[in-house]
Amino acid sequence: MTEVNDISGVLFDYGRAARIGLPEAVYSQGKPFPILVSLLEKFAAGEPPILFTRLDEEVAGRVPPEIMSEYDYDPVSRTAFVRPLPPRAKGSVGVLSAGSADAPVARECARTLEYLGIKFALYEDRGVAGLWRVIQSLPDINSHDAVIVTAGMEGALASVIGGLCPKPVYAVPTSIGYGAGANGEAALLGMLSSCASGVAVLNIDNGYGAACAAARVLGIL
Amino acid sequence: MTEVNDISGVLFDYGRAARIGLPEAVYSQGKPFPILVSLLEKFAAGEPPILFTRLDEEVAGRVPPEIMSEYDYDPVSRTAFVRPLPPRAKGSVGVLSAGSADAPVARECARTLEYLGIKFALYEDRGVAGLWRVIQSLPDINSHDAVIVTAGMEGALASVIGGLCPKPVYAVPTSIGYGAGANGEAALLGMLSSCASGVAVLNIDNGYGAACAAARVLGIL
Amino acid sequence: MTEVNDISGVLFDYGRAARIGLPEAVYSQGKPFPILVSLLEKFAAGEPPILFTRLDEEVAGRVPPEIMSEYDYDPVSRTAFVRPLPPRAKGSVGVLSAGSADAPVARECARTLEYLGIKFALYEDRGVAGLWRVIQSLPDINSHDAVIVTAGMEGALASVIGGLCPKPVYAVPTSIGYGAGANGEAALLGMLSSCASGVAVLNIDNGYGAACAAARVLGIL
Amino acid sequence: MTEVNDISGVLFDYGRAARIGLPEAVYSQGKPFPILVSLLEKFAAGEPPILFTRLDEEVAGRVPPEIMSEYDYDPVSRTAFVRPLPPRAKGSVGVLSAGSADAPVARECARTLEYLGIKFALYEDRGVAGLWRVIQSLPDINSHDAVIVTAGMEGALASVIGGLCPKPVYAVPTSIGYGAGANGEAALLGMLSSCASGVAVLNIDNGYGAACAAARVLGIL
Amino acid sequence: MTEVNDISGVLFDYGRAARIGLPEAVYSQGKPFPILVSLLEKFAAGEPPILFTRLDEEVAGRVPPEIMSEYDYDPVSRTAFVRPLPPRAKGSVGVLSAGSADAPVARECARTLEYLGIKFALYEDRGVAGLWRVIQSLPDINSHDAVIVTAGMEGALASVIGGLCPKPVYAVPTSIGYGAGANGEAALLGMLSSCASGVAVLNIDNGYGAACAAARVLGIL
Amino acid sequence: MTEVNDISGVLFDYGRAARIGLPEAVYSQGKPFPILVSLLEKFAAGEPPILFTRLDEEVAGRVPPEIMSEYDYDPVSRTAFVRPLPPRAKGSVGVLSAGSADAPVARECARTLEYLGIKFALYEDRGVAGLWRVIQSLPDINSHDAVIVTAGMEGALASVIGGLCPKPVYAVPTSIGYGAGANGEAALLGMLSSCASGVAVLNIDNGYGAACAAARVLGIL
Amino acid sequence: MTEVNDISGVLFDYGRAARIGLPEAVYSQGKPFPILVSLLEKFAAGEPPILFTRLDEEVAGRVPPEIMSEYDYDPVSRTAFVRPLPPRAKGSVGVLSAGSADAPVARECARTLEYLGIKFALYEDRGVAGLWRVIQSLPDINSHDAVIVTAGMEGALASVIGGLCPKPVYAVPTSIGYGAGANGEAALLGMLSSCASGVAVLNIDNGYGAACAAARVLGIL
Amino acid sequence: MTEVNDISGVLFDYGRAARIGLPEAVYSQGKPFPILVSLLEKFAAGEPPILFTRLDEEVAGRVPPEIMSEYDYDPVSRTAFVRPLPPRAKGSVGVLSAGSADAPVARECARTLEYLGIKFALYEDRGVAGLWRVIQSLPDINSHDAVIVTAGMEGALASVIGGLCPKPVYAVPTSIGYGAGANGEAALLGMLSSCASGVAVLNIDNGYGAACAAARVLGIL
Repeated sequence: MTEVNDISGVLFDYGRAARIGLPEAVYSQGKPFPILVSLLEKFAAGEPPILFTRLDEEVAGRVPPEIMSEYDYDPVSRTAFVRPLPPRAKGSVGVLSAGSADAPVARECARTLEYLGIKFALYEDRGVAGLWRVIQSLPDINSHDAVIVTAGMEGALASVIGGLCPKPVYAVPTSIGYGAGANGEAALLGMLSSCASGVAVLNIDNGYGAACAAARVLGIL
Repeated sequence: MTEVNDISGVLFDYGRAARIGLPEAVYSQGKPFPILVSLLEKFAAGEPPILFTRLDEEVAGRVPPEIMSEYDYDPVSRTAFVRPLPPRAKGSVGVLSAGSADAPVARECARTLEYLGIKFALYEDRGVAGLWRVIQSLPDINSHDAVIVTAGMEGALASVIGGLCPKPVYAVPTSIGYGAGANGEAALLGMLSSCASGVAVLNIDNGYGAACAAARVLGIL
Repeated sequence: MTEVNDISGVLFDYGRAARIGLPEAVYSQGKPFPILVSLLEKFAAGEPPILFTRLDEEVAGRVPPEIMSEYDYDPVSRTAFVRPLPPRAKGSVGVLSAGSADAPVARECARTLEYLGIKFALYEDRGVAGLWRVIQSLPDINSHDAVIVTAGMEGALASVIGGLCPKPVYAVPTSIGYGAGANGEAALLGMLSSCASGVAVLNIDNGYGAACAAARVLGIL
Repeated sequence: MTEVNDISGVLFDYGRAARIGLPEAVYSQGKPFPILVSLLEKFAAGEPPILFTRLDEEVAGRVPPEIMSEYDYDPVSRTAFVRPLPPRAKGSVGVLSAGSADAPVARECARTLEYLGIKFALYEDRGVAGLWRVIQSLPDINSHDAVIVTAGMEGALASVIGGLCPKPVYAVPTSIGYGAGANGEAALLGMLSSCASGVAVLNIDNGYGAACAAARVLGIL
Repeated sequence: MTEVNDISGVLFDYGRAARIGLPEAVYSQGKPFPILVSLLEKFAAGEPPILFTRLDEEVAGRVPPEIMSEYDYDPVSRTAFVRPLPPRAKGSVGVLSAGSADAPVARECARTLEYLGIKFALYEDRGVAGLWRVIQSLPDINSHDAVIVTAGMEGALASVIGGLCPKPVYAVPTSIGYGAGANGEAALLGMLSSCASGVAVLNIDNGYGAACAAARVLGIL
Repeated sequence: MTEVNDISGVLFDYGRAARIGLPEAVYSQGKPFPILVSLLEKFAAGEPPILFTRLDEEVAGRVPPEIMSEYDYDPVSRTAFVRPLPPRAKGSVGVLSAGSADAPVARECARTLEYLGIKFALYEDRGVAGLWRVIQSLPDINSHDAVIVTAGMEGALASVIGGLCPKPVYAVPTSIGYGAGANGEAALLGMLSSCASGVAVLNIDNGYGAACAAARVLGIL
Repeated sequence: MTEVNDISGVLFDYGRAARIGLPEAVYSQGKPFPILVSLLEKFAAGEPPILFTRLDEEVAGRVPPEIMSEYDYDPVSRTAFVRPLPPRAKGSVGVLSAGSADAPVARECARTLEYLGIKFALYEDRGVAGLWRVIQSLPDINSHDAVIVTAGMEGALASVIGGLCPKPVYAVPTSIGYGAGANGEAALLGMLSSCASGVAVLNIDNGYGAACAAARVLGIL
Repeated sequence: MTEVNDISGVLFDYGRAARIGLPEAVYSQGKPFPILVSLLEKFAAGEPPILFTRLDEEVAGRVPPEIMSEYDYDPVSRTAFVRPLPPRAKGSVGVLSAGSADAPVARECARTLEYLGIKFALYEDRGVAGLWRVIQSLPDINSHDAVIVTAGMEGALASVIGGLCPKPVYAVPTSIGYGAGANGEAALLGMLSSCASGVAVLNIDNGYGAACAAARVLGIL
């Protein structure tokens, strides 16, 4: 039987960055802890710098400090990396959230863009129950090359932005809500069914994926 | 075995109007055809006038014309009644739809209100992909005593109205959409999860129910 | 990266009370803790008084006592506010529950109404398995201007009240139950499908929303 | 390849009546038409008399008349049999429906009981939106040895009967309804979650099964 | 606001035993703890003796010992009562389980029958993967007046028993399983779809309900 | 725009037979009719012979007879091929069905095996409600090298066979059933959750896939 | 009551093209027929040229020929427009399909791009069961500025392309499949869960939306 | 009432190994702890050696050490057995995983094969986002007599292997993923809908079942 913390069998896809411009990242949630620690140790030197996502604060706290201290760790977005990739891609990305409860997802977007060396601006708390909040920021929002909308509940912000912004719009439903449709299902279905044309959707809470999608627009290879 | 077209066993709830102000209505869909015809015949004299809902044009066309001709039938809303109830209740109801595909539901609302003797105005095609359409009508909409929002797709119109209108707002998801969340599920979940406070929801395509809910607000007893 | 407890980006919708009569409330569940504490601190002076909902006792216990002590906190309803809004709106609201397990939701209704300055009466434990319990209270229940029914399991109380009460009826399914349909789904579907006309539904456990819907009926602007 | 209308491979379970008192029945829906006709022909002599269920009027109309004319066919319940089994079992069964749209299911119950040689009474249109209709029949209903409740929409009639009747109560959700929970799902979940103790449930529209369950109570072997 | 541990508003349905033979029971799960303790205290004298179900060992351990010690508490079935009701009803009930993991549900059945004063026998670990286990016990099983089958996974035991036993058969799906259909959904759907005629179903894990259903067969009034 | 009946863009995977031993088949359902006809015409010469599945009788009837007459078409299994592949693979496959309504799926299995040049035997109508039917055939069933079980309703036959047969067992849920779990969902979940070890499952009604899976066991390359 | 074919109330969102570069389109499915005909008539002059989607051949055949003949109608994609918009946007879009059954969706993409004046190439029948088909076209596919992948069944093509192509990738699940996950649900969930980074998803069969999303990337304002 | 730790009623199916070659195993999850300990004690002598699955490290840690120390326990796969069965069956099984997060399931496969005395090789981290990883191992993979593919997310690895490998392929969806389709549902649906022919599926995370299915192929009796 392979030892639990043996990662010799792990086939890291080093060629991915050369193929599609996006290096392989490590999705930390659900990984057996010894494997996760081995991976954090392996990449602590930062050659290449690798992004760890879904790294809960409680889990990060159990990683040996001599390893973890090599990383820039953010507990809200639950992301860690040794250092960002070199700046690349012209242009910038606008990241919106509907409410402050969407912060973990919106900031996973932001942190991934930071890691990828892409400029971005964060517009939080722009939910449609107070429409003026999004309308007053519209010129700024439309100045970016791609726009990411993170929203829970019914996710209506994606439709409103989709009807007002001509740029590529990526919608990320968040697992904020309750009752029927909780866990992001209402927002996911709403965004998939948006009456605004050409709004594309990522899976629930997948801020990382939205950042990668936006990176594809700006040009990452 | 009871004969198919024998409705002697049907216990019509004549006391309902006295109890809650809303007479019993006949939901036509799924009723065995001979029973439906017997009920249409029974109420053709209009004492009391009874509302038939979900009466498809194809079905209505098979009812003997001497019965059907007693009724005021509308094929879009699929409703029939001999004559409206006497006008009652002060005030009026605003009925909105997001798109022209919502017409069957919005007009089921409108026809039910007409039958109940309640004033209403219809605002169709006010979807959020073109926000100006709802905002320019807002003063009119807010002048009513209750507002009904019918919308399919992601149903975002309910949230937008809920954030701009202080009156009782009833949201009716319509079975307009496709793919995941089709058949009104995306709109239903979205409306139940609305970030606007105090928006109450009826079942998918239940325009009749929304009209009754609004009637309860205006006072029907 | 924005600091975790930085709420300078939070765009509180102060205009909401002026627009629709209902001030913005803070849904505490799922908020990152530092942001929640910042919001509690910000509104501890009570200008304007803000309602916090879904504030679990365990979470409230971790808030610095000098902040929390400014609030009137109720652990069953999980609500907190510094003081109620001034009394307004004529009339009153009846709040029913089917069983004592529905108390958290029924009392979230009650506490929200108290915060909004609206009179109410609470009728608990009126489930339909013992019909006499609701029938003996019917005259009292019907004396209110709006009625809220909270029920889990199959949620049949909403249909029974809907058939006996002429006032606006708002049904709130509660997440009380087990097996198939647990988490309130059986009650939600049952209430949406109620054979009683004009019963409008809120999302599962959304006592806050039902109180706001009733407030719209009484007139809040 | 076996010929389509070859039923020589069909292993009819003749021993079932001896084992559990209930002969095997033929569920007609979905059966390839030639096989169905072969089975109708095979049992046209009535030795033993076999019950065919879910035999749609349109399908029955395509069966050669010389075969079909041997059968007592009822189009509402969609059942056929040559003659009933000899009377057996003391006692009787009460069959309730909530509305006239439940007739196909309630009458499938009734016809199955008739076929099994069991006495029954039919109480149709006893929905809870008009509670007096069920309460006035309660003494009659409670005089039976088992009670079957067929109801669509939210299925609340099962809970009301379950709380008022001490006899074995079998609840059959019917596929009457619309929107979320249509196709009987709301009634099924509601009946499974009934707050009345000891109400047992059959699958949606399974009137045949409820009659068999009641037959087990009366004693069929 | 009503005090949390105030149960003066709780309307216990004392008349239920007289109406349907089954006293009201207390479903402990989800009840606010102070209310639960007040109810345990109220019924500690045992007049009438009341059944508490779903009382987790951890919760029972937090109840003041002077109250809890009055009760006969069983941690596997999670039930408590001061003493059983007087023996009544002739006949007996057979309770089967498919595997030892079904013990909590099978024993909730058994304990409820014990509380109701009804004789029963328990047949555990009779799953269909080893058919001989059920077939060797068949004569014993068929000697009872009603049979309860508790099974998780695919719940096939209900179909096998339904095809071999002529008595009333009640099937209880248990939340034993994994992956798709876990939480008892596979067993629930399987039992509702059983190819054996007249098998009636209770909700997932509802051993209490099955015992009450069987009690209705034996005669409880 | 490509012409509708232009199949020049269709990239038939001719190499599949060499790679995995199974030639590409044509799933006819949902194919635009002109494309389907073009494919039938293209392969009418039978070099290589290609299997068409899900070819409804009504659709086949609209194909020009000069094309269709080249094919051996079976309306129950809805399959067509010009001639079988040469016999290969030692051994044989047993194909069971629970009831005659499963014939379309069981025969899709059988016809696919016939096309693949593999020996098989068909055991129809072996449902568990009459256990003797499967037990008496057990020695025959166990003599095959792989066994396919097709069953609808609750699909319990798969568990019973899985517990009695040591050979590779493939379970195919069929869309036979009604109410909750209809369309094969109850059978699918039941088979996935089977308490018998090592029963592998194909998608609902996928008789073709089960035949291919069995072919992999016998050795097809 | 508004007349059925009265579209005076329809508020066409003429400003949408100016706001976001994409003119409003007419989703024909579910529209009451008289309203649909009125809209086709209104835009037959082609000022501005409007795209009609989901216009079934059967429905189009019932439109008066003098109206329909003004339109370029394609029955596979079910789209109609009088003439394309002027060419705009540099670059081009690659549209892939996994199988010929995906043609209706892939060609809705293609026709929408043609209408929008955007260059595209169509790569059909590139499913992953024969990997060489996609790999041999990879250089061509990667030469476009955005790539759309339409696939049903398990939708694996999106993951394979996402791992090999650096450009913006939009995945459209198609309603091709059967059994569990039919109607596109398996493909939708698979695409949302893709292990390839930054693949964004449209709703099931939403080829129109994918074309609009790609248009946003190329720049449409 | 039976004592909690009384396993005298447990009917272990000792004949299973003789019947189908696979001894009964103990699924530990959900078993009441005293019963689990009794079973571990009973089989600690290893006559016959029994496999315990889903034995969480935390639970195993609470078993008395004098019992647990008799077992070979692996915390990643959560399996325990005293010693393997004697080697039997010619041939070997290839076990693939898509990513390191699938390790618990892939290793449950591997450990079950080890217990059954069957040779195997483990190929971890072969996800399709880096296709080269599976293609370079293909000759090795194809040298086995049966292949097991464990994968979460969209589960596309099963389709890719199914199109490249002629041997029996068993797909096991793992509960690795997030958002819609998490808990293995996306992978399960994807694998059931695989466009590769003859891929058979086990339930989510059922590595044990896949090993048993492969054992049936190699011949275990």
